[in-house]
Amino acid sequence: MPELRRDPVVGRWVIISTERARRPSDFPPPRWPRKGGPCVFCAGHESRTPDEVWALRPDASQPNGPGWLVRVVPNKFPALRIEGELERTGEGLFDRMNGVGAHEVVIEAPAHDAVIEQLPVGHLAEVLRAYRERIRDLAKDPRLEYVMVFKNHGDPAGASLEHTHSQLIATPIVPIMVEEELAGALQHYRIKQRCIWCDIVRQERRDAIRVIREEGGFVAIAPFAPRFPFETWVLPVAHRSAFEETPVGDLGPLAELISTILRGMTRYLGDPPYNFMLHSAPLRTPALEHFHWHLEIIPKLTRVAGFEWGTGFFINPTPPEEAAEYLRGEVPDAP
Amino acid sequence: MPELRRDPVVGRWVIISTERARRPSDFPPPRWPRKGGPCVFCAGHESRTPDEVWALRPDASQPNGPGWLVRVVPNKFPALRIEGELERTGEGLFDRMNGVGAHEVVIEAPAHDAVIEQLPVGHLAEVLRAYRERIRDLAKDPRLEYVMVFKNHGDPAGASLEHTHSQLIATPIVPIMVEEELAGALQHYRIKQRCIWCDIVRQERRDAIRVIREEGGFVAIAPFAPRFPFETWVLPVAHRSAFEETPVGDLGPLAELISTILRGMTRYLGDPPYNFMLHSAPLRTPALEHFHWHLEIIPKLTRVAGFEWGTGFFINPTPPEEAAEYLRGEVPDAP
Repeated sequence: MPELRRDPVVGRWVIISTERARRPSDFPPPRWPRKGGPCVFCAGHESRTPDEVWALRPDASQPNGPGWLVRVVPNKFPALRIEGELERTGEGLFDRMNGVGAHEVVIEAPAHDAVIEQLPVGHLAEVLRAYRERIRDLAKDPRLEYVMVFKNHGDPAGASLEHTHSQLIATPIVPIMVEEELAGALQHYRIKQRCIWCDIVRQERRDAIRVIREEGGFVAIAPFAPRFPFETWVLPVAHRSAFEETPVGDLGPLAELISTILRGMTRYLGDPPYNFMLHSAPLRTPALEHFHWHLEIIPKLTRVAGFEWGTGFFINPTPPEEAAEYLRGEVPDAP
Repeated sequence: MPELRRDPVVGRWVIISTERARRPSDFPPPRWPRKGGPCVFCAGHESRTPDEVWALRPDASQPNGPGWLVRVVPNKFPALRIEGELERTGEGLFDRMNGVGAHEVVIEAPAHDAVIEQLPVGHLAEVLRAYRERIRDLAKDPRLEYVMVFKNHGDPAGASLEHTHSQLIATPIVPIMVEEELAGALQHYRIKQRCIWCDIVRQERRDAIRVIREEGGFVAIAPFAPRFPFETWVLPVAHRSAFEETPVGDLGPLAELISTILRGMTRYLGDPPYNFMLHSAPLRTPALEHFHWHLEIIPKLTRVAGFEWGTGFFINPTPPEEAAEYLRGEVPDAP
């Protein structure tokens, strides 16, 4: 019997269709052969991007030349622009705002054929540090309210360049999905005086069926009501609302956990396209008792169709309990 | 300068990136060659589907044999099941419901190579009548709260079978997107004592820049804050909350308008994959002053990526004012 399940944070219902359950091998293979480099993100091509805003240069090399391990540059084709004052206007029923914001690219490694989950864990920790430092810097701009860090891996997941990279977009308003999370979490907090994600982590660790792995204060779980098959959340076990407040020393175990999850997806799901999105607190909010940062990883194995677009219901053919078994490596006949 | 725009109904913000504006020819061509028939939906293969629940048989032919023009059957692989009582259970933080509901397929024409927008308008009106009659019938089941009618056209839009068809899924709860629309519209109504969609239709008809076409009491517009390029809404000009209360005589002009819009998309956008979704009032609600049914048509020309999944913001590269010009056929160099 299929089940409806409600995400306790935003109130989103999903359908878990256990009878149409798909194993990893039931999904069609990805269709995006690599084209090969070099490209504008490759070491040696720094002049083809806008000037870097942050870089890890272990040998103290000059900006905008080779010698970097991780490099952050403004997006050449930004969705939002950093220049100008924020203007809000109305037009009868309609409201507009000009597109002030920031759109940056985090080039995760200098080599064209680098793969994020095969980077040394220390290198991936530096990618996470780039996110942290860029959020802290953008927080100084009072026009900006939020920074969303995300990664599109593979053409079907929206990646237009194959050189491994993530992006961040800073917006002048808090995005609606984050607002919905904040509102749902505040309601829980007002009743219970507890963070809802702390409650989720506690229940999941006790039940253990949807926990995929723990690593140095961080936990990866298959959420109770996932929109997508093999959707995975990574959270700190101890309460923390803002990712950018993570001590640098904690980024190592976090990188270890993320790397393990991505390697598991590559191994068990056949290198699927995926997205990940970092949900942190709005900029410059004092530590929030009711919000808990989390990273959502969504492999792109199914198509989103009219029913999802019309209802907000997602039809997910893989129960998270089974997804967790696969990603823990416990299914004997998994590829 | 790109713009942020807010949908006045649900409060959803989108980014209109006018500087990255794409014309129809900038989008990649669809990659789903037709495979050809016959298939289980073709006339003569009626025994390969579950027994029909509704059919238009002009010659009074027998059920479950040939002779039909439009045929509705239960989905052989339903997302929700019609059997059983609704059971709600909790598990710590989490809530479940069993998947009681209905999932039906509306086979829009008997021939495998039929194309919905090339059907005679009278035939398409009968497809709309099938929606109407099925909603009215499912409304008799007190376990069901909502019926979503939708169409997936083309593999990238989620169609698993190419024979032209639409679907309906009846759910035991009102979907969150409809709840959000109801809540936003109720807020507007409480302040203004007017339906927000009536206000939108009035403003759009006065401004005329986003109106694509009108036809016998129905209007097609490019909405002010569309999530997707060339997104189009079709609404009755006069207030009506429930699609299934549409007089049968009005389905002709509605079919004419929908057919024109779909033919325009095929012509100007190169036969893109698309979805459409019918947003009507919840079942058995008395006529609602604040809700106005509408059909949303979304061509699939862009990929939804991490930013959209993380924020609920959509990056739409085509301003609706330009989309309306294309779909009105006013752009001289359009294909």
